[in-house]
Amino acid sequence: MEYFPPALEALTEQFARLPGVGKKSAQRLSFFVLGLPDEEARAFAEAIVTAKRTISLCPVCRSFTEGEGLCPICQSSKRDESTVCVVADPKDVAALERSREYNGRYHVLHGVISPMNHVGPDDLHIKELVERVSAGGVQEVIMATNPTTEGEATAMYLSRLLKPFGVKVTRLAYGVPVGGQLEFADDATLTRALEGRREM
Amino acid sequence: MEYFPPALEALTEQFARLPGVGKKSAQRLSFFVLGLPDEEARAFAEAIVTAKRTISLCPVCRSFTEGEGLCPICQSSKRDESTVCVVADPKDVAALERSREYNGRYHVLHGVISPMNHVGPDDLHIKELVERVSAGGVQEVIMATNPTTEGEATAMYLSRLLKPFGVKVTRLAYGVPVGGQLEFADDATLTRALEGRREM
Repeated sequence: MEYFPPALEALTEQFARLPGVGKKSAQRLSFFVLGLPDEEARAFAEAIVTAKRTISLCPVCRSFTEGEGLCPICQSSKRDESTVCVVADPKDVAALERSREYNGRYHVLHGVISPMNHVGPDDLHIKELVERVSAGGVQEVIMATNPTTEGEATAMYLSRLLKPFGVKVTRLAYGVPVGGQLEFADDATLTRALEGRREM
Repeated sequence: MEYFPPALEALTEQFARLPGVGKKSAQRLSFFVLGLPDEEARAFAEAIVTAKRTISLCPVCRSFTEGEGLCPICQSSKRDESTVCVVADPKDVAALERSREYNGRYHVLHGVISPMNHVGPDDLHIKELVERVSAGGVQEVIMATNPTTEGEATAMYLSRLLKPFGVKVTRLAYGVPVGGQLEFADDATLTRALEGRREM
């Protein structure tokens, strides 16, 4: 027997579809929305519709952009366009931007090559990257895919694809994470950290 | 510098307002919604608007209901109306219904008395409960507020308020949780479990 009205169950089901939201959290979110003032609930619904309607992928880097135009980073004349950082996902753009260390452009693949999940090179925005590099002007491509097996394989694949164009292809450094503890670092990480040691 | 378009940031901010959703999860939820097919994103937005527009509080028990009518439980002729279970929150109705053990009606207070948070009896749906009981027909009121200090105090307050009407007022049993381990039970729980022991 249903103990809540169908419109409430329907909202809970919508929340339960979101990644990382279980049945109970979904119910809590529904109750929260019902408790919002009318105009705030409407603003929430409108933010979904507006984002979905106006946001697309940047024609150059495939990160998110408004409408048909370039994304904020590709638009900016302050960003060095001779350096392109390749990431798997838009959230990696956000992570790198938070470091405030990088001043080049990006290229978002929207995934990594993963034969297990039937994701091949053609399912990613690789063709656009090759076109960007072959058009000239790019001097360095930084591979910033995750340091996982699939991230590595994707970086390796792209490196082979891009080197013939005469660009420098680099990879993020491996090592012990800042603020971490040596005793918890795995062997592979420690090996890479030793290999990559620098004079102080 | 903003690296994502404003409509995306606006959606992320909306998600970040939800309880238990941090900045990073909010961003993940935004990306997920952007990745949905158009009609599914629209269905999500519409579920919010529809729930907000059509759902109100049941005129009898103050649980959620559709429009002006009675909630599914108050509507059902199969539920024993001589027993009323008092809970703090609609999610407690869901928890009790999941047990499939209870066949009476409910009364939802929408909170507990909490002087620390400036919540007094007048801020809760207590007047409606007293009216229900004074109208006659109710034989037992089960206090199912949480076994916390505030839940106890609220149960105690209501018990004193309702007993003059000649109804039986009961409280959920305390004891060790089923499937739990004795060594992790706190002293107060063990004391209550011993006091409430039953012959086998």
